[in-house]
Amino acid sequence: LGSFRLGELAALVGGEVVGDPERRVEAVRPLDVAGPADLSFLTHPRYREQAEASRAGALLLAEDARGLASAADLLVCPDPYHALSRILDHVHPRPAVTPGIHPTAVIGEGCTIDPSASVGPYAVLGEECTVGPGAVIGPHVCLGPRCSVGAGATLHAHAVLYDRVTVGAGTVVHSGAVLGADGFGYATHGGAQVKVPQVGTVTLEEEVEIGANSAVDRATFETTRIGRGSKLDNLVQVGHNVQIGRDCLLCGQSGIAGSARIGDRVVFAGQAGAAGHLTVGDDVQVAAQAAVLGSVESGRVGGAPAVDLASWRRQVVALHKLPEALRRLSRLEKELARLREREAGTRATGVETD
Amino acid sequence: LGSFRLGELAALVGGEVVGDPERRVEAVRPLDVAGPADLSFLTHPRYREQAEASRAGALLLAEDARGLASAADLLVCPDPYHALSRILDHVHPRPAVTPGIHPTAVIGEGCTIDPSASVGPYAVLGEECTVGPGAVIGPHVCLGPRCSVGAGATLHAHAVLYDRVTVGAGTVVHSGAVLGADGFGYATHGGAQVKVPQVGTVTLEEEVEIGANSAVDRATFETTRIGRGSKLDNLVQVGHNVQIGRDCLLCGQSGIAGSARIGDRVVFAGQAGAAGHLTVGDDVQVAAQAAVLGSVESGRVGGAPAVDLASWRRQVVALHKLPEALRRLSRLEKELARLREREAGTRATGVETD
Amino acid sequence: LGSFRLGELAALVGGEVVGDPERRVEAVRPLDVAGPADLSFLTHPRYREQAEASRAGALLLAEDARGLASAADLLVCPDPYHALSRILDHVHPRPAVTPGIHPTAVIGEGCTIDPSASVGPYAVLGEECTVGPGAVIGPHVCLGPRCSVGAGATLHAHAVLYDRVTVGAGTVVHSGAVLGADGFGYATHGGAQVKVPQVGTVTLEEEVEIGANSAVDRATFETTRIGRGSKLDNLVQVGHNVQIGRDCLLCGQSGIAGSARIGDRVVFAGQAGAAGHLTVGDDVQVAAQAAVLGSVESGRVGGAPAVDLASWRRQVVALHKLPEALRRLSRLEKELARLREREAGTRATGVETD
Repeated sequence: LGSFRLGELAALVGGEVVGDPERRVEAVRPLDVAGPADLSFLTHPRYREQAEASRAGALLLAEDARGLASAADLLVCPDPYHALSRILDHVHPRPAVTPGIHPTAVIGEGCTIDPSASVGPYAVLGEECTVGPGAVIGPHVCLGPRCSVGAGATLHAHAVLYDRVTVGAGTVVHSGAVLGADGFGYATHGGAQVKVPQVGTVTLEEEVEIGANSAVDRATFETTRIGRGSKLDNLVQVGHNVQIGRDCLLCGQSGIAGSARIGDRVVFAGQAGAAGHLTVGDDVQVAAQAAVLGSVESGRVGGAPAVDLASWRRQVVALHKLPEALRRLSRLEKELARLREREAGTRATGVETD
Repeated sequence: LGSFRLGELAALVGGEVVGDPERRVEAVRPLDVAGPADLSFLTHPRYREQAEASRAGALLLAEDARGLASAADLLVCPDPYHALSRILDHVHPRPAVTPGIHPTAVIGEGCTIDPSASVGPYAVLGEECTVGPGAVIGPHVCLGPRCSVGAGATLHAHAVLYDRVTVGAGTVVHSGAVLGADGFGYATHGGAQVKVPQVGTVTLEEEVEIGANSAVDRATFETTRIGRGSKLDNLVQVGHNVQIGRDCLLCGQSGIAGSARIGDRVVFAGQAGAAGHLTVGDDVQVAAQAAVLGSVESGRVGGAPAVDLASWRRQVVALHKLPEALRRLSRLEKELARLREREAGTRATGVETD
Repeated sequence: LGSFRLGELAALVGGEVVGDPERRVEAVRPLDVAGPADLSFLTHPRYREQAEASRAGALLLAEDARGLASAADLLVCPDPYHALSRILDHVHPRPAVTPGIHPTAVIGEGCTIDPSASVGPYAVLGEECTVGPGAVIGPHVCLGPRCSVGAGATLHAHAVLYDRVTVGAGTVVHSGAVLGADGFGYATHGGAQVKVPQVGTVTLEEEVEIGANSAVDRATFETTRIGRGSKLDNLVQVGHNVQIGRDCLLCGQSGIAGSARIGDRVVFAGQAGAAGHLTVGDDVQVAAQAAVLGSVESGRVGGAPAVDLASWRRQVVALHKLPEALRRLSRLEKELARLREREAGTRATGVETD
């Protein structure tokens, strides 16, 4: 790593230095471990006290944190988390790709591999694959026949693509991810499960990211599709025929069942799921562990089965009160029974009965 | 792909042509993309309108859809989804297996590999493994010592078998699946977790299918068993000592904890789970995200903890009404308190008190 | 396997023989399959009847089962499950490690590999990795640059470590586990997800175990840490920056979201999850499928969102009664309405109105 002027970093992210723009920064580190040679950052108000106690030489923060009680030089910008992303790219540039095909790689007939691409040790490419400029095929990656890997895409060690899978430019596939395995389709016939051949494939558009050990199944026909800029975390399951829009976030261990259609900018939090053959509209946010069992047009949902988030929260609060409410209900019934008896007595005798 | 007479396909599936049996079909495609040279299919009434609007030259459908308003030639049969499966097998035959052992494969001492089997690049077989006729060992597959792979079985790229695992004839294991890793068994002793050696193994019977990145743990003793014809989707977890019957379906991200016994034809929907040391009877169906925490003899269950499906649905409806019900309860209490006060006043004075 | 004197096994685990200490044991097997040459075991009272019916020649059991009706020779000890673990280690010793580097392994520049370590076929080690004495690097394992694998650690076939990951002494990583893939960090900017570079790494301390196909993400900065003796089951997700203490158990398919801090001896049952940026105290036990959405100091929790276990159980019972309770509530409202009408009549006329 090198050393960077704070003023240079401010120019990079369109921010303003409050303090000394000549301050040298050698690394970016969290508040609790940063020292005088480090830039640290305050991206959430919950960490304000920690920021004031930090020994960091410089602090990246938002406009509304400008008044922080700190001796650090400040880098003020409108969106410090986004700025952090850009500064990290600048301070920790990705290692340069070493072009070329490792001698142990097995390359099928008819493959077209750009000379600027890198193919690692023990990679196995089926026939007629295409690998674009600057793409990186990591060690032990397997591509089935007729796969296409776009420019600048990265397949990390041990990623597996079945046949005919398309990976868009700039897309990243992490280790252990499996793209294009058979969809889970069986016709139950006489009590047995008869496999429905899955003759489609998988398409990842540009700038997609697929987490470690996630699985995206091939379509029964045509293609399962993950739209441009969508990001899948680790251990995510995407069933056959699913269509996912752009700029979605699918957090760890979430799952989308077959033939569901997910809009743009949709977020599934951790361990959430959607049933098959439904539609989730643009910008919908699904809470952790929620089960989306019917189509959702918009808004935020939670619970299993998922309902709108405000309803779910009311249900959770109400459920917490339920055991006591049942006792209150029993008391009411007893009281009312007593009233009824008394009333019956009054009606029968015209006087109080006890 | 070739071209097929509709009459030929009807004979294959025992169906009836309504229209021209000489109609040529080149591919099978979904309703919305099929054209005049394609066979499409209507396997669920929800798609009837789409079927009527389809440009497909031929349509596969059930008896009760015979009256469809369509110019297409019809292939009518009792179970169109099952027929679809058979037609796809006919139209898209599996690529022939190229027998032989890739020169880069590492074969342990004492292995017996049928000459008609295929062993891919970089496969590693431990000592004394057996591979049956027509079996396919994909690239990068690892077999521990003394594994057995049955006739016609397929282990896709990057499948991993620990030692002594048995894979039945015709069974398919998808990429990244791990069979026979140690079960999760520890004796807590003085606050620390002491590993209990897992000296059993795993048996997959015939015609089983294991999805991508699923894990089936070896037994502590004896064997974890998946019964004939059962199908596991992706990212499914099967704990040590589990016994799964025949023709079960375990959907994506479902999990069965250690020592559970699952009957025949059981279905676990996505993200559902079963606790350890319990029994699930034949034909039980477990809803998505349900948590089976006790034994279930029969029927359908849902919820966490799982109860019979009708009860769960009633609970879900009731929970939705609960926040309002709590308000109703409070109103009742107030009214009753007022009545009680009034009654007390009446009894005390003999007249109305307000 | 050899043959062992019961007295020798008793000495090993500090137990007492009731019966013949010269009894020979050839294998350890479960109650239902053990025969006269086997040692079996009773580690849970639920299996007492099975133990009495067992044909095992010898039985390992706890003090309070000493009175068992059985002709077997007994090995009585305070903690039979822990004793079982030690006896299995004795009877089934781990296969000896064959030191050396397989000729097909690709070793980066500047690696330091202890001569007593084993590196399997097709392993790929990046530059400047360190492998300690007696460590086992299985076939197809990939290590990124500058990884460190401690003495006696085992990386099973197809484990993947990204760069700079540290694996402590005696730690076991099962097949398909991925350590150090990028954390799931994006800055949403203008509707798009901008990747926040993940420049930290992962540290597994000593005697950790990571299950098959689990994923532990690298930290954004610094390190994601799994404390000494903690065990992760299969398909477990650990997000970036997470800190897990010592001797924890994370069961199958559980997940810990980013930046959460988990104490010592914490248990997450199957499919449970914790949200990010929270703290879970020492000895907390989280029930299956529970969703920990806020910090928990101590005790046992269940439900989604998780509450203390006793409350959750009361909620479950109450929810079961809820549909009927709603009917009771409606009846009460009707009765009260009738009373009110009657009362109104009484007040208006001074006499009964019906």
